[in-house]
Amino acid sequence: MATRESSVREPRTGDAPVAEHAEPAQPATAAPVAEQGVEAHKAEGSTIQLDVAALGEQLMGRWAESRRASRELMRREDFHRIPTDDMHAQRERVLGQLGLLVAHGSVHRAFPKEFGGEDDHGGFIASFEELLLADPSMQIKSGVQWGLYASAILHLGTEQHHQAWLPDALDLSTPGAFAMTETGHGSDVSAVGTTATYDEASDEWVIHTPFRAAWKDYIGNAALHGKSAVVFAQLITRGVNHGVHAFYVPLRDENGDFLAGIGGEDDGLKGGLNGIDNGRLHFSQVRVPRTHLLNRYGSVDENGVYTSPITSPGRRFFTMLGTLVQGRVSLDGACVVASKLATTIAVRYGSERRQFDDGDDNEVVLLDYQRHQRRLLPRLAQTYAMSFAHEVFLEKFDGVFSGRTDTDSDREDLETLAAALKPLSTWAALDIIQEAREATGGQGFLAANRLTQLRADLDIYATFEGDNNVLLQLVAKRLLTDYSRSFAKADAGVMAHYVADQVNEAVMHRSGLRRLVQSVADFGSTARSVGYVRDTASQRQLLTDRVETMVAELAGKLRSASKLPKKDAAALFNRHQNALIETAKAHGELLQWEAFTEALEKVEHEGNRQVLTWLRDLFGLGLIEKNLAWYVIHGRLSDHRAQAITDYIDDRLLPRLRPHALELTDAFELRDEHIRADIATGQERARQEEAREYYASLRARGLAPIDEKDLLAAQKKRAV
Amino acid sequence: MATRESSVREPRTGDAPVAEHAEPAQPATAAPVAEQGVEAHKAEGSTIQLDVAALGEQLMGRWAESRRASRELMRREDFHRIPTDDMHAQRERVLGQLGLLVAHGSVHRAFPKEFGGEDDHGGFIASFEELLLADPSMQIKSGVQWGLYASAILHLGTEQHHQAWLPDALDLSTPGAFAMTETGHGSDVSAVGTTATYDEASDEWVIHTPFRAAWKDYIGNAALHGKSAVVFAQLITRGVNHGVHAFYVPLRDENGDFLAGIGGEDDGLKGGLNGIDNGRLHFSQVRVPRTHLLNRYGSVDENGVYTSPITSPGRRFFTMLGTLVQGRVSLDGACVVASKLATTIAVRYGSERRQFDDGDDNEVVLLDYQRHQRRLLPRLAQTYAMSFAHEVFLEKFDGVFSGRTDTDSDREDLETLAAALKPLSTWAALDIIQEAREATGGQGFLAANRLTQLRADLDIYATFEGDNNVLLQLVAKRLLTDYSRSFAKADAGVMAHYVADQVNEAVMHRSGLRRLVQSVADFGSTARSVGYVRDTASQRQLLTDRVETMVAELAGKLRSASKLPKKDAAALFNRHQNALIETAKAHGELLQWEAFTEALEKVEHEGNRQVLTWLRDLFGLGLIEKNLAWYVIHGRLSDHRAQAITDYIDDRLLPRLRPHALELTDAFELRDEHIRADIATGQERARQEEAREYYASLRARGLAPIDEKDLLAAQKKRAV
Repeated sequence: MATRESSVREPRTGDAPVAEHAEPAQPATAAPVAEQGVEAHKAEGSTIQLDVAALGEQLMGRWAESRRASRELMRREDFHRIPTDDMHAQRERVLGQLGLLVAHGSVHRAFPKEFGGEDDHGGFIASFEELLLADPSMQIKSGVQWGLYASAILHLGTEQHHQAWLPDALDLSTPGAFAMTETGHGSDVSAVGTTATYDEASDEWVIHTPFRAAWKDYIGNAALHGKSAVVFAQLITRGVNHGVHAFYVPLRDENGDFLAGIGGEDDGLKGGLNGIDNGRLHFSQVRVPRTHLLNRYGSVDENGVYTSPITSPGRRFFTMLGTLVQGRVSLDGACVVASKLATTIAVRYGSERRQFDDGDDNEVVLLDYQRHQRRLLPRLAQTYAMSFAHEVFLEKFDGVFSGRTDTDSDREDLETLAAALKPLSTWAALDIIQEAREATGGQGFLAANRLTQLRADLDIYATFEGDNNVLLQLVAKRLLTDYSRSFAKADAGVMAHYVADQVNEAVMHRSGLRRLVQSVADFGSTARSVGYVRDTASQRQLLTDRVETMVAELAGKLRSASKLPKKDAAALFNRHQNALIETAKAHGELLQWEAFTEALEKVEHEGNRQVLTWLRDLFGLGLIEKNLAWYVIHGRLSDHRAQAITDYIDDRLLPRLRPHALELTDAFELRDEHIRADIATGQERARQEEAREYYASLRARGLAPIDEKDLLAAQKKRAV
Repeated sequence: MATRESSVREPRTGDAPVAEHAEPAQPATAAPVAEQGVEAHKAEGSTIQLDVAALGEQLMGRWAESRRASRELMRREDFHRIPTDDMHAQRERVLGQLGLLVAHGSVHRAFPKEFGGEDDHGGFIASFEELLLADPSMQIKSGVQWGLYASAILHLGTEQHHQAWLPDALDLSTPGAFAMTETGHGSDVSAVGTTATYDEASDEWVIHTPFRAAWKDYIGNAALHGKSAVVFAQLITRGVNHGVHAFYVPLRDENGDFLAGIGGEDDGLKGGLNGIDNGRLHFSQVRVPRTHLLNRYGSVDENGVYTSPITSPGRRFFTMLGTLVQGRVSLDGACVVASKLATTIAVRYGSERRQFDDGDDNEVVLLDYQRHQRRLLPRLAQTYAMSFAHEVFLEKFDGVFSGRTDTDSDREDLETLAAALKPLSTWAALDIIQEAREATGGQGFLAANRLTQLRADLDIYATFEGDNNVLLQLVAKRLLTDYSRSFAKADAGVMAHYVADQVNEAVMHRSGLRRLVQSVADFGSTARSVGYVRDTASQRQLLTDRVETMVAELAGKLRSASKLPKKDAAALFNRHQNALIETAKAHGELLQWEAFTEALEKVEHEGNRQVLTWLRDLFGLGLIEKNLAWYVIHGRLSDHRAQAITDYIDDRLLPRLRPHALELTDAFELRDEHIRADIATGQERARQEEAREYYASLRARGLAPIDEKDLLAAQKKRAV
C-alpha cells in the first residue's frame, strides 16, 4: 500500500495568498451585487425594479456560505482548466488541484469530526458542486476520491476501517478508486461478475475476475493515480453467494506499479472529463485479509459464516447502494451550476450582439428577436426551476445523512427524488449548453468561450451514476407501488367510487363533452381562456392531474403483471416501458414546478415576486405546451385554451421577461473569473460601439458612400 | 504569392499501393454484401427476407460510383483521424491529407475539363461527402479549398481569373481562404464592414478593415496555411457602394509570413474540427490590381465606372451568394453519412450488449427493450428519410450547376431546398449521434468508439454555411411569397371561395364538430382508427395540410405588413418569428417524407418494400406524433386517432422493424475501416459469449455458488 509520503500532492503553483475561509455570507439586505464584483445590469423597457442581491441570496440557498467559500476559491487561476492542455497534462494538473483542495481544507466537511470533518453533508455537496466552475474534471475527480471512495469506506465500512483508511483517503495520501462498474455491467450492479470468495484456510478473501466482461471499467483513478480501491464483488462463502459487497483492495506499490495479480488498462481519451484517469482493472486470485470486507451491512467470521443486520438480500443490496446517493445529488447540483454558467454567457452575448437591421438602419440586438427569446428565456426559467428543486433535494439529503430525518420512508423518498431529478437536470444541462452554443454562433464554438468543452464534459452525466433511462424506471416503479398501496388501504366503498370516477371520466373524454363545455365558455376570449391556466392552482392541477392519470392508466395496463410468470410480467412491463419513462419524467417535472412555486411563495420583494412569477409561469406553461396533445386528448384543455397557451408565452411572457434577462442571470452571482468566456465579459459590447461610432463618424464627415440602391431609387424619382 | 513549389504537399506516409480509381459500381444484382467485406446480418424473428444489396444500391443513389470510389479511398489508414493528435498535429496531418486527395485525383471532378475536371457537380459533392468517414476536419478543409475558395474563383470570376488562379487552387499549390464572415457579421453577409475602394490614380483596389468587428473571422486556412484569399468586401467606386463583391487577395509570402498590410490571429482551439486552422484576418489599406475583382457579376473599368449584368443590387447579391449553395448541399449529405455511421454503431452494440435479466435468468439484448427501440429505430427511419431527401437535393443541384435545368425558378427552388434541408439534417445528425452515444453508455463516451468526436465536429454544422434559424426564415418567406403569388393570380371568385372555406373551417374547428364526427366513427376500434393514418395518401394529406394551414394562418397575420412602415413591418414579422420557423420546419419535414415515399415507390423487391414501408410509416407517423397537439387542436385528428398513433408505433411498427434493424444498417455498406468503433466490430459479442460460457461451465461442473435468495426460499419451504 502507498505510504503517505509517496503521494501527498503539492499545489502546483506557488504561494498566492488566498482566503482560507469564505467571505461571510451576504445578508438578505446585502450591498448591490456590483460591489461584490458581480455584473449589475439594469432593466430597460420595464418599470419593475428587481432586488438582484436578494434574488441571488435566495438562489444560493441554505448552504450559501459553503457555496460562496467554494466560489471564492474557484476564482483562483490555479484551479482553472487550461483548454489547450492535452490529456496527460490535464490529468496531472487535476491531481495537483485535488491536493490544493486538501490544502485549503475544502474536502473534509462531510466526514466525522474525529477525522477533521464537520458532519456537514449538505454543505459538503454544495461546495463540491461549485468546483464545476473551475473544471468539471476536478469536480468529478474530487467526487471519485471523497464522494465515492472515501464515502464508501465511511458508509459501508465500520470503525476499524475508518481508523485505518479514512485519514489517508481524506488528505489524498491514498488516491482511491471506486471499482463498481464493469465492462459488462453498469446500471445492473447486482450482476457484476467479479467474485470475492472466502478462503477459511488463510482467513482471506480471494478477489477474482472470471472473464473479460467482468473487468472493472471507466473507473476514475484506475489508469494512473489509484493506490487502493473499494472493489464491489459477489461475496461467496461456504458455497453461497450473498450478493454484491465492497472490499478494500490495495492496487499499486510505492512506485505506482500494480501489485501481484492486479492488471489494468487505460480507458484512454474520452469525449470529455479528460482530467480524470479512467481505466480498467482486473484481479487474478488477489488475496486480502478477511477484515478488508467493508462490513457494515454484512460480515463473515473466521469460520466463513455470513451475518447481516438486514435479512433480505434485496433490501440489503439497495441499502448499501443507497449510501451512494450523494453522487446523484451532486450531479444534479453541478448541472444547475453549469446551466447558470451557460445561460449567463448566452444572455450576455445575446444582449450585446446585433444582427440584421430593424427596417430603420439600426441593427437589432439578438435578444430582441422573438426566436432568440424563445430559445433562451424558457431555458433560463428551467435553470431557476432546477436550482430551486435542487435545494429541496439537498435539504432532503442532508436530513437523511445527518440522521435528522432518517426513516426508511425518508431514504426511499430521497432515492426517488434522486432518480427523478438527476435525469431531468443532466439532460437539461446538455440542452441548455447546446442552445447557448448555437445562440452564440461561431463564437460559441471557440474554446475561448467555454461552451463546447462544458458540454463535452457533462455529456457523460446523462449515463453515469445511473443511466437516466434506468433511473426513470425506478421512479415509475415507485409511483406504481404508491398507487397500489393506496388501493390496498382503500375499503370497498372508496374503490367503487374510484372506479365510477374513472368510468365517468372515460365517457366524458371519449365523447369530448368536457372539452366542448369548456370551448363554449371560452369562446371569443383569449384573455379569459388563458386566465384559467395562468394561476398557480390551475397549473398545479394540470401538472398533477397528468401524473396521476398516467400512473392510473399504467397501473390498469400492468394490473395483470402480479399474476403472470416472471418472464411474462417482464414482457408486459417492456411493452409499456416508454410510457413508464414518460410518466416518471412528468413526475420529475412536477417536482421541479412545485419547488419553483414554493420558492416563489417565500419572495418578499414585490418586483422579484412579479418577475419570478412570470418566470415560473413560463416554466409551467412550457411544460403544459410540451405535452399539449396529452392535455387536449384527455379533455383537460379545450382547443381554444390549448392554443392560447402558446400565444400567451409568445405575446406576453417573453416580452415581459426580456428586459429582466440580464438581471436574472446577474442573480447567479458569477464573476468574470467564473465565466471566463470572452464574449460574456465586455468584448462584444466594445466591438459594437466601435463599429457604430465608425459609421456615425463617416456620416458626420460626409465620407459615407451612397448605397447603389438609394442611388437607383433617386434616379427613378428624377426620371418620374 | 506562393510559388507552386513551396506549397505542394507530399503524402505524409509512404507509398502504400492504392487503387487510383474506384472499384466499378456494383450492379443492382450485386453479390451479397458479405462478399464486399461488409457485415451481413440475418433477421431473426421475422419471416421477411430483405435484399440488402439492392437496398444498399438504392441508398447509394445516382452517384454511387463516385461515392464508392471515395469510400474505398477512405478505408486507407493515412486518411483517418488520429484521436490523440493535438491541434497542431491535426492541422498538419489534414493539410497533408488534402495533398493525398490531389495525388489520388479526387478533387477536380466539379471543375471544367480544361482544368483537368469533368464538369461533374453531383459526383464531386457525393464523393466529397464521404470524406467525413475518415475525418470531418478533412472534409471541411477540402470544402474550404475546393468547395469555397476554388469555386468562388470559378463561379464569381471570369476566364482570366480561371487561367491565373484555378490550377494552383486545384492542386493545392495555393491553399486558399474564403474570407466572407466577419466577427460582427455572419449570417448577414450584406452588412460586412470590410471595404474595397477603387483608386483610379493607381488602377487598384484598396482593401481595408475599418474596425475590429470587421475582421474576417472563423476563416479556414487563415491561421496558417492560406497563401491567398477570396475576400468579400463592400465595393466602393466613385463614392457609391455597389454592395458586397469578391476580390482575390494574396495573403502570405513564400515563408508563410503575412504580406504588408495584412494581419491576423489564430482562432485557436475549437469545440471540434481542430484539423482546420481557422483564423482571423484584417487588412490595412491593402492594394491589389483592379483585375483582382472577381467580375462575373460586376465590373469596374479604369475610370471607376461600375457595370453589372444584373441591374438590381439585391438580386445581384443573391445571385452571387447562390453560386455557393454547394456548401449547404454537402453539409446536408455529410450529415446523412454521419447519421449512417452513428446508427450503425448504436444498432450493432444494441444488438449484442445485454442488460438486466428477463425474469428467466437470461440477460436481455438492449435492442429488445421497447425504450431502446423507441430511441434508435425512429432515428434510423429519419436517417433513411434524410438520405433519400438528399438524393433529390443533389439531383436538383446537379441540374442547375450542369446547366441542364438552370432557370431562375430552378435556382430559387434549389436555394429553398438547401435552406429547408440543411437545418433539419444538421440538427438531426447531432440528435442521432447523441442518442447513439447515450444508447451505448460509457462505451459511447470513449474516443475509441468515435461518437463523441463525431458530434463535436458536427456541432458547428448547425450554425455555419447559414445559421439554421436564419435559413428556415428564408424558407418561410419563400412559402409566404408563393402563397401570395397564388392569390395574385386568383380572380375574385376563387378568393371568395377560399375565404368561405376558411370561415367554415374555423367554425368547424371551434365547435369541435369535425372531430366529434370522427370520434363517433372511430369509437371502439383502434385498428380502424389507425388504418386511416397508416396509408400513404392520409399521411401525405395530414403533413401537407399542416404546412398549408400554417402558411395560410401566417399570411393572414402578416397581411398588413406590406402597408406598414418598414420598421413596423419588421416588428410584425418578429412577433411571428417563432411560427415562421416552425412552418419552415414542417415544410422541410414534408419534403423529406415525400422523398422517402418516392423512393419507396421505386422498390421492386417485395421484402424491401414491406420493411421500407414500415420504416417510412415510422418516419411519417413520428412527424405527426411530434405535432399531435396541432392536429388535434386543428380538428385534423380525433382524440382517438391521435392516441392510436402512439400505440401503433409502440405496438406494431417497432416490433416489426426490430428484427431488421441490423440489416437496415448493413445496407449503409460501411466497412470496419469506416466504422472504426471497437464496440461495433465484434468485440462486444465476444465478451458476451465468453461470459455466458463461463457461467454455463460453472453450472455444468457443479461449481456455481447457491444464491442466498434461493437458499432463503428453500429454507422457508422446509420450515413450512
